[in-house]
Amino acid sequence: MKKIYLDYAATTPVKEEVVNAMLPFFESTEKHESLISKIKDDFMSILNASTGEIIFTSSGTFSDNTLIRSLAYYQRDHGKGNQIITSTIEHPAVYKTLEKLEVEGFEVVYVPVDQSGVLEMDLFYKAISQKTALVTIMMMNNEIGTKQPIEEIGTFLKEKETLFHVDAVQALGSMKIDIDSLHLDAASFSAHKIYAPKGCGALYVKNIELLNFSHGSILEPSCEIYENIPYIVGFGKALSLSYEHFKESVSHRQVLKEKLVKGMLSLDMGIECNGLPLDESSHPGIMNFYIPQMDGDSLVINYDFNGIAISSGSACSSGALSASHVLKAIGFNDQKAKRCIRITVGDNTSMDDIAHVIAVTEEMLKGLKYVK
Amino acid sequence: MKKIYLDYAATTPVKEEVVNAMLPFFESTEKHESLISKIKDDFMSILNASTGEIIFTSSGTFSDNTLIRSLAYYQRDHGKGNQIITSTIEHPAVYKTLEKLEVEGFEVVYVPVDQSGVLEMDLFYKAISQKTALVTIMMMNNEIGTKQPIEEIGTFLKEKETLFHVDAVQALGSMKIDIDSLHLDAASFSAHKIYAPKGCGALYVKNIELLNFSHGSILEPSCEIYENIPYIVGFGKALSLSYEHFKESVSHRQVLKEKLVKGMLSLDMGIECNGLPLDESSHPGIMNFYIPQMDGDSLVINYDFNGIAISSGSACSSGALSASHVLKAIGFNDQKAKRCIRITVGDNTSMDDIAHVIAVTEEMLKGLKYVK
Ligand SMILES: Cc1ncc(COP(=O)(O)O)c(C=O)c1O
Ligand SMILES: Cc1ncc(COP(=O)(O)O)c(C=O)c1O
Repeated sequence: MKKIYLDYAATTPVKEEVVNAMLPFFESTEKHESLISKIKDDFMSILNASTGEIIFTSSGTFSDNTLIRSLAYYQRDHGKGNQIITSTIEHPAVYKTLEKLEVEGFEVVYVPVDQSGVLEMDLFYKAISQKTALVTIMMMNNEIGTKQPIEEIGTFLKEKETLFHVDAVQALGSMKIDIDSLHLDAASFSAHKIYAPKGCGALYVKNIELLNFSHGSILEPSCEIYENIPYIVGFGKALSLSYEHFKESVSHRQVLKEKLVKGMLSLDMGIECNGLPLDESSHPGIMNFYIPQMDGDSLVINYDFNGIAISSGSACSSGALSASHVLKAIGFNDQKAKRCIRITVGDNTSMDDIAHVIAVTEEMLKGLKYVK
Repeated sequence: MKKIYLDYAATTPVKEEVVNAMLPFFESTEKHESLISKIKDDFMSILNASTGEIIFTSSGTFSDNTLIRSLAYYQRDHGKGNQIITSTIEHPAVYKTLEKLEVEGFEVVYVPVDQSGVLEMDLFYKAISQKTALVTIMMMNNEIGTKQPIEEIGTFLKEKETLFHVDAVQALGSMKIDIDSLHLDAASFSAHKIYAPKGCGALYVKNIELLNFSHGSILEPSCEIYENIPYIVGFGKALSLSYEHFKESVSHRQVLKEKLVKGMLSLDMGIECNGLPLDESSHPGIMNFYIPQMDGDSLVINYDFNGIAISSGSACSSGALSASHVLKAIGFNDQKAKRCIRITVGDNTSMDDIAHVIAVTEEMLKGLKYVK
């Protein structure tokens, strides 16, 4: 039985065209400097960034770490305040970095989200002050797929001295990102969410020198993976493929998502879909279901037993047994948060896959009682 | 005209078998945990390490950084002194990290080498004291290929509380490394020196918790590139290939090296070969020539013009115009150090390549005067 993979928000298989694009570069010992700067230019133009630069890193996590830390210290060193504003639903790559910065003397304000997972903008505006050095808000959430009001924040911060960083890891390939119009100072990306290899990320930064985490590389900044040509080429190829097929990919996934959401809800088994699954602005592939009959980890095992790969808890911490901080942030108690799963459809998902998931779910839950 | 590549100490082309071993893993979304722990076990057994662990990182540089910093702070936090002993010929990944640690309050002692590039052991013994927390010495030098007295240092430190780290990046695949008998606490390795991809390294560490440079990864330590399965598989494959063909590879290179060294010296143009090129213990592929007629950068350009890729200066900082710190450490003045080139032979180098280099050198230098 072929496995049905429905965990695209965790990682994606590398596309054949991407592998083929990388292949010639393994056996090469050249530095391919002009090719790399061409790929960077392509990134800049696809993401509509007229100033600043793209740097390739070893992961989305490393992009988040490097940017948040560099921007925070840059601001502090330039007397621009000590306060960082973020949301309660960020990825660990962001909030763990912020927790570390708190220990180092920064003040971090966590602005809550509403029950569908959208930042409470009135509270955001209240939090902003003279001492706000940095705002870091994700573009699309990796667990429930809601989009954050990045345009509004960008416009508001535009005239201010506050820097604005966006974790765009889940957004890349799933919504159009326009760095100039969003007035971003920095953004993080990851290759393995868009059918390029794991172990490669990118960051965008506008005119701010990055801190070095390691020393003695040939080039500065030290986070640059300049020598890993195949992965840079692969990421570049994946990005252009994604933009070539943008509309089809997004609507393909939206159609599948709608079908799955409606199918699950119509099972009449008390299943709920968290976030704003059918909102146009949400991530086209991510769905998060509350399934009252069983805890998420057992559900994952049961689906797996039926040949379906999905995940419980957050994108990057499958295996962690604590309840998702994102679901708690949208108002779930521990018990409810633990009865949720994430299903993500991707470019290779078919209508048959969706029908199969619905059938398996029905079969699985049949006869199991649930209390609301 | 096919280019003759003679810069294997800088980087190596990825072998076809290694690419083939990696290929199936690009299109996979599995975590392959048991495969990875099998590869780690293989590393441990090939390197004869009975305790401790192997961790895959994003480069040799990152392995050096992570280990030196983690070991230094571990010792300081455990009241084991504040002093670090190293040599004057370490790679930037080591000495730049040490420079940073000096700023952070550690005392670093740079023990000199003799004129062939071997650590002055009497000075080393004099430097060691109660407050020595860490000794970090490279196994084989990347510019002149001399091997350091690692056995002697390991045996001496065995009963002491001083930790011992070795940068084995150039040694891997070029000499047998026995972690247990050398009494190593930590060692750094890099994939792209043994025909595996750039952007992948490994570290060995014995029972010491590593510091995190970034936060929010799934697994600790954060330097682990657990998710980059193809590169880990590739590195594993390259290491086993290297050990399968160890003897042939070493003697193949030694033969070529001897031929080139003798050929260059017999041109009677004042060329000298630095280090201990024909010593059995030296790196089988690395040669460093002083060519009195021309500075290293012009030589590199001239060789390149003749279809031969070599490097001037140190392994990883081609492009840097300052004189090599290694050559200065063996007693060269700036001017002499700048008239040197490094040539490295590798598994794909042929006798014809060597003959061609000698012929090109003769032609190039013919008629140029030189003063000793
Ligand atoms: C929103 C978000 N940010 C950052 C990351 C980390 O990216 P990477 O896996 O490349 O380190 C992820 C991965 O799931 C993510 O979903
Ligand atoms: C002795 C030594 N250490 C460390 C490194 C760094 O390894 P990497 O290029 O994988 O960062 C090199 C690379 O030339 C080296 O020769």
